[in-house]
Amino acid sequence: MPDLRKDPIVGRWVIVAKSRAKRPHDFDTTPRRRRKQFCPFCEGNEDKTPGEIIAYREPGSRPNGKGWRVRVVPNKFPALEIEGELNKRGEGIYDMMQGVGAHEVIIESPRHVISTSELSESQIREVLWVYRDRLVDLKKDPRLVYGMIFKNVGAAAGASLEHTHSQLIVTPIVPINVWEEMTGSLEFQHYRGRCVYCDMIQQELAHEKRVVMDTPGFVAFCPFASRFPFETWILPKVHSSHYEKIQKNEVDELAGVMRQVIGKIEVALDQPAYNYIIHTAPFDTQELGHYHWHIEIMPSLTKSAGFEWGTGFYINPVPPEDAAMFLGEVEAESSETETFTSRRTG
Amino acid sequence: MPDLRKDPIVGRWVIVAKSRAKRPHDFDTTPRRRRKQFCPFCEGNEDKTPGEIIAYREPGSRPNGKGWRVRVVPNKFPALEIEGELNKRGEGIYDMMQGVGAHEVIIESPRHVISTSELSESQIREVLWVYRDRLVDLKKDPRLVYGMIFKNVGAAAGASLEHTHSQLIVTPIVPINVWEEMTGSLEFQHYRGRCVYCDMIQQELAHEKRVVMDTPGFVAFCPFASRFPFETWILPKVHSSHYEKIQKNEVDELAGVMRQVIGKIEVALDQPAYNYIIHTAPFDTQELGHYHWHIEIMPSLTKSAGFEWGTGFYINPVPPEDAAMFLGEVEAESSETETFTSRRTG
Repeated sequence: MPDLRKDPIVGRWVIVAKSRAKRPHDFDTTPRRRRKQFCPFCEGNEDKTPGEIIAYREPGSRPNGKGWRVRVVPNKFPALEIEGELNKRGEGIYDMMQGVGAHEVIIESPRHVISTSELSESQIREVLWVYRDRLVDLKKDPRLVYGMIFKNVGAAAGASLEHTHSQLIVTPIVPINVWEEMTGSLEFQHYRGRCVYCDMIQQELAHEKRVVMDTPGFVAFCPFASRFPFETWILPKVHSSHYEKIQKNEVDELAGVMRQVIGKIEVALDQPAYNYIIHTAPFDTQELGHYHWHIEIMPSLTKSAGFEWGTGFYINPVPPEDAAMFLGEVEAESSETETFTSRRTG
Repeated sequence: MPDLRKDPIVGRWVIVAKSRAKRPHDFDTTPRRRRKQFCPFCEGNEDKTPGEIIAYREPGSRPNGKGWRVRVVPNKFPALEIEGELNKRGEGIYDMMQGVGAHEVIIESPRHVISTSELSESQIREVLWVYRDRLVDLKKDPRLVYGMIFKNVGAAAGASLEHTHSQLIVTPIVPINVWEEMTGSLEFQHYRGRCVYCDMIQQELAHEKRVVMDTPGFVAFCPFASRFPFETWILPKVHSSHYEKIQKNEVDELAGVMRQVIGKIEVALDQPAYNYIIHTAPFDTQELGHYHWHIEIMPSLTKSAGFEWGTGFYINPVPPEDAAMFLGEVEAESSETETFTSRRTG
């Protein structure tokens, strides 16, 4: 008999169909192909992207030239535009505004690699730090209320360029799923007086069966009501609502956790396409007792689309306990040097 | 400058990026292939499915034999199971219950065709009527509260068998998107004293620019805050919250609208994969003044997945006004005989 499980934050029910349980190799992942074509994100091609907003560079190197380690540029085809007024207005019963906002690309390495797991820990640290830098800068703009950082790896996850990069979309509204997390976690706090995410961390660490990784400052687990096979969340153990308040020592530790967890998913599922998304509180809030920033990692394994989109109704063929067990067992490729050697291409 | 548009029912904001506007032929639709393999849904293969729950049959024909026009069978790999108790329980902060419910397949034709547009109007009428019959029957079960009818056409939309069929999943909980529609429309009614869907119908018919089809009893339009290119909704003009209360004359008219609208989408977009979902009120409610049943049709054109799933944040490159204009201009293949001839395969 399958389970019906309720997400304690937003109240979404998910069918976890044990009877359909699959082992990781049963999934028909589309291998991430390496395309041999010109890449505008590789070092030396800086003039093929819009001019950089910020870059971490070697001493003496010049903007939009070689010598960078991480580079942030405007998206060449932005979903939102930075210039202009919001011009909020109605059209009969409908509400609308101008699409003012920011859409930036974080190029995570000068070398042509395609996944976070192919970066060194120190590179990932700089990526995590530049996320923070951009949020701190953009939240000064009073028109903008939310900064969404996400990464698509592989065509099946929506990546149109394969060179490892993340994106930042900054909007004048709060995305509905974050809004639901905010209101759901506030309701939990009203009722029980606690942060629902802190409760989840405590329970997951006590039960262990869904934990993928446990470090002094962070925990990674497959959530109880996982929508997708091998969905994995990473949360800081110390309560904090805003990602951009992250401290240097936390970034250092998180980089290792990211690299390990994504590496494990890639070994277990044979290099699947995946997305990760940083869920953080809106710009226009102070520290919130009920909201807890976190990272959601979702491998792209299931094919159907419109139905889940249309109903919010998910059928997950892999219980998160099984996923966590698989991920706990596999070893991410551990040596940075080895990884660099075996995967070097550019 | 793109628009940010708010769905007046659930409050979701969508980026409608005019600057990326595409004409229908710019989409890279994966053609729906006809696979030459054994089909358990074709007439003569009745013993290859579980035994039928109901079928509309020719006089004198026998259950699970030839001579049916529409046939409903249990899903061979059900997401939920009909026998058993709900056994609602907690696991620490989490809530769960047994996956009790129904998962049925509606085989819409004895012939091997793949889309609603390839059925005659009288066949579609019987399909729409059997949906009603199954809902009326299943809502007698006090364990079950929601019946979700949907159709996946094409592998990109999640169909694993190509022979035209729909599915019915009946659950002991209300899917979250329906719940959001219920609460959002109730809020609208509290504030304005009207049904938000009735308001939308009135405004769309007055403005015309998003209307795809307008018949005495039904309207089809591309919604103001469309999440997907060419997303199209069909609503009854007379307020009604429960699909299963549909009358014979409404079914007759709706069949023609469904055939036309899906036919237009298929001509405009070159036979894309698509989903449709019937949104209706939960079983355990009486007629509701604030909720309005409707059908949402979603062509599968955009590739990315996890990001939209993860955030509820959609970027739609085709303004619904443009989509409605294209759909209004194209003619669905009009002659049933012609359609049958040109597409006959088995």
